[in-house]
Amino acid sequence: MTSRKETSGPADPRFFKRAGPFDAAALAEAAGAELAPPRAGAMPAGGYTGIAPLQGAGPADVSFLDNRRYAPLLEQTGAGLVIVAPAFAGKVPAHSAALVTSAPYLAWSRVARLFHPAVPAVAGVHALACIDPTARIDASAEIGPFVVVGPRAEIGAGCIVGSHAVIGEGVQLGRDCRIGSHVTLSHAVLGERVSILPGARIGQDGFGFAVGPQGFETVPQLGRVVIEHDVEIGANSTIDRGSVNDTLIGAGSRLDNLVQIGHNAQLGRCCIVVSQAGISGSTVLEDYVTIAAQAGLIGHIRIGAKARIGAQCGVMSDIEGGADVIGSPAMPFREFFRNVAVLRKLAKKASGSPQGGADKV
Amino acid sequence: MTSRKETSGPADPRFFKRAGPFDAAALAEAAGAELAPPRAGAMPAGGYTGIAPLQGAGPADVSFLDNRRYAPLLEQTGAGLVIVAPAFAGKVPAHSAALVTSAPYLAWSRVARLFHPAVPAVAGVHALACIDPTARIDASAEIGPFVVVGPRAEIGAGCIVGSHAVIGEGVQLGRDCRIGSHVTLSHAVLGERVSILPGARIGQDGFGFAVGPQGFETVPQLGRVVIEHDVEIGANSTIDRGSVNDTLIGAGSRLDNLVQIGHNAQLGRCCIVVSQAGISGSTVLEDYVTIAAQAGLIGHIRIGAKARIGAQCGVMSDIEGGADVIGSPAMPFREFFRNVAVLRKLAKKASGSPQGGADKV
Amino acid sequence: MTSRKETSGPADPRFFKRAGPFDAAALAEAAGAELAPPRAGAMPAGGYTGIAPLQGAGPADVSFLDNRRYAPLLEQTGAGLVIVAPAFAGKVPAHSAALVTSAPYLAWSRVARLFHPAVPAVAGVHALACIDPTARIDASAEIGPFVVVGPRAEIGAGCIVGSHAVIGEGVQLGRDCRIGSHVTLSHAVLGERVSILPGARIGQDGFGFAVGPQGFETVPQLGRVVIEHDVEIGANSTIDRGSVNDTLIGAGSRLDNLVQIGHNAQLGRCCIVVSQAGISGSTVLEDYVTIAAQAGLIGHIRIGAKARIGAQCGVMSDIEGGADVIGSPAMPFREFFRNVAVLRKLAKKASGSPQGGADKV
Repeated sequence: MTSRKETSGPADPRFFKRAGPFDAAALAEAAGAELAPPRAGAMPAGGYTGIAPLQGAGPADVSFLDNRRYAPLLEQTGAGLVIVAPAFAGKVPAHSAALVTSAPYLAWSRVARLFHPAVPAVAGVHALACIDPTARIDASAEIGPFVVVGPRAEIGAGCIVGSHAVIGEGVQLGRDCRIGSHVTLSHAVLGERVSILPGARIGQDGFGFAVGPQGFETVPQLGRVVIEHDVEIGANSTIDRGSVNDTLIGAGSRLDNLVQIGHNAQLGRCCIVVSQAGISGSTVLEDYVTIAAQAGLIGHIRIGAKARIGAQCGVMSDIEGGADVIGSPAMPFREFFRNVAVLRKLAKKASGSPQGGADKV
Repeated sequence: MTSRKETSGPADPRFFKRAGPFDAAALAEAAGAELAPPRAGAMPAGGYTGIAPLQGAGPADVSFLDNRRYAPLLEQTGAGLVIVAPAFAGKVPAHSAALVTSAPYLAWSRVARLFHPAVPAVAGVHALACIDPTARIDASAEIGPFVVVGPRAEIGAGCIVGSHAVIGEGVQLGRDCRIGSHVTLSHAVLGERVSILPGARIGQDGFGFAVGPQGFETVPQLGRVVIEHDVEIGANSTIDRGSVNDTLIGAGSRLDNLVQIGHNAQLGRCCIVVSQAGISGSTVLEDYVTIAAQAGLIGHIRIGAKARIGAQCGVMSDIEGGADVIGSPAMPFREFFRNVAVLRKLAKKASGSPQGGADKV
Repeated sequence: MTSRKETSGPADPRFFKRAGPFDAAALAEAAGAELAPPRAGAMPAGGYTGIAPLQGAGPADVSFLDNRRYAPLLEQTGAGLVIVAPAFAGKVPAHSAALVTSAPYLAWSRVARLFHPAVPAVAGVHALACIDPTARIDASAEIGPFVVVGPRAEIGAGCIVGSHAVIGEGVQLGRDCRIGSHVTLSHAVLGERVSILPGARIGQDGFGFAVGPQGFETVPQLGRVVIEHDVEIGANSTIDRGSVNDTLIGAGSRLDNLVQIGHNAQLGRCCIVVSQAGISGSTVLEDYVTIAAQAGLIGHIRIGAKARIGAQCGVMSDIEGGADVIGSPAMPFREFFRNVAVLRKLAKKASGSPQGGADKV
């Protein structure tokens, strides 16, 4: 039976392999953090064996605090080792060692990776894959069952292509890409270490049609999708290929699930696009732009470097670099919340006054 | 040729099998409703043969009225039997029998199910499925073509797994689950009678990365997705697995299409999440929460039991149990519509006055 | 290595086949445009060989200007032939011929299609497809690897069904349909020349349940999806089948990616639904309605012919034909932007005044 009791510790061995144990020095080195031994008691003789959240951790577990919201859990944790920022070092229980660092989330990430390293490719093409004889697949790549690889496609060293993925005619994958199950890739050129989660659709026809005498006529979409190194694209996201120019996803960018990228859009380096956001055709994001969940950008605009677009924001015109905007239409954060507060005040006044009657409108 | 004339009656025999006929007593029992015979004429000697909407129904058809908006159709219906609430019993035509109940939609559902019972599993694994030898599949389960079942996965009695579905390593399905075509399941534990519609992605990496010296570094996602009994998940929805804790979907919850659930989110029992809504990481929904279409919730907040979040609502902080909110940012329904009305009034006034000039701004 | 330098010209020969060359007269005829020879120099003796954007085009390339925003590029283009509206004919460089037309985008579309004609079906069923013996597949249709075609399904002449697509029991496809990879089709009847992009889900259970004594009970969904001629549906979009009546997509309509259409919705002819928009159950769109990106419509309403619903609009009631609305709740465009301007003005005033204090609220 499935029950809430099942929702316990991380790294269920049915799903995750585990390395280790590791001693505190090895963890400190991986984390790039400074080790503070426990003020009372000793570190476990056999080393630390795994990771756990603050509230479920034991003496052989490593845990961490990153979000101030969860600080009360720190003082009660049973974890043998805790990764914390300097500001919280004093709150670590006496029985726990601490790894102190100004970047606890990064340190946590590296420690977790040490215990649970990424699974490498198992070289070989599954017998049930369907590979065009003109495709070039590096001998070290792993190709799953029911995969289709089209004519002249190229798959680099160390790539893992999950079951049912389609690597269309002429598509190129640089080394060490991870293509999830059920992904469709066409008209696309990928760099190295690109990760695409299950069900993403990349390279299909953009939404282009002209009004003809008999109805809409489809406009040929003759561009590509170019994805640079180290990009990650979420599950069931859609990236249309360019109509004339290419659609471009800049190096290091991270796209979440169910994101839509229209044809000819150009994302700079290290952009973040959170789930269910949409970027319309030919819009340009400079580097380090963040688009929060469910935000939408119209086409043919430019978002300056390091701008941050808030959740559900509706962006109808260019945004300057470094700006923080929210609302629909987009406006500076401060202005948005001032507007909200002023309207609330005016509405209260209107409904309270004798002539009031907002409720009667 | 396809034409609008095709859009006629329900239960096209090309797509739906039909049981019956059934007499009024059997239908009343299935419906849990009280039978009122026709005031003029007789019930069909051979029983009722199927269901139909009010406007297309004949003397051997069962129909129903649930939405007050369609009440005018009741008086003109040709249906031999109509399921209605007591308030509408008097409007049933004289030639029609009535099944009167305070829950007409539920009664309708059960009558429709009587005529069109759910199709049971056809036991067996398709010859074109790809099953790991260590997987355990109950002999009564149905596994479609091109399905992949990974190592040590477990599939319970009576399950139906549609074509091209992927049941990842170690995944567990309780009895009588329905997994649609093209579903991807990994790092997940499912209860009984869970239904997942085509193309849903469950258990993939959450959106987690830390800022490192060279760009973003992926944070290992070491939790699972736990789905309790009787949950339904819509087409192309995405549910990320937890990062440290699990992502949890509580018993009886219903998620519509294209819904996004972030890592570590916890949904209580019988929650409803309508299409294109998104719930960010680590947010908690207590029991019986309703999230309407396209609403978005930020991470790390708590929504109290029976709260109702309106369509397109943007929720940035905790919501109390039982509250009804809408707007972005979220506010009580009444306040939202008061604000809308007051602003409209002020804007009209401003543009009408001599100094006005909103249009000149 | 993948680099920005890769984002150059259109129609990369790895992905696109090319016809031609064509002389100016042939292009003028295809475009339905009037030819204006270059004011200086000659047209290329060997004809034009391809298409290119204004900024990258050479003397043998055809280019176009449609969006006024890009007009400055026209005067500097190296293109041998440019498609333009009459208003821009005077800005065409002296060395370029022009095709002048009041519908430059349509002309461009046809010229691009001339150089890059749609790839026809390659008749035959792939050896790795799984076809029910009772299905009827026209001999001229192309069925890809890992496709599933169910009992009594019918696939018309010239159809292309991409890899991993599922054509469910009884589904009908008219001639010349294009079904993308990973599409799921069930309980559906399609007209001719329907194009469905990868990963769309069509015909699955609608979101219907009744509240029973033990929790929600699924209501049988007994309608179909009817898709008329010349419809295009985007990647990963979802269209639920009707519950009693059918879900209908009218002839010539265009749906973008990640669109949600609820059960029993009825779209008229030539409607446009942009990405991530959602239409709830039983809502009716008359002909030529446009729904912009991320807009949402509640159920059981009617949108009049030629109405235009703006991006992120929240529509809670009927909209008159020809109306232009935006905002949540929906209001006329003019009113929406007036409200925005008035609120901004009031908020500035409030925060500037001594009692002000929006920031203190």
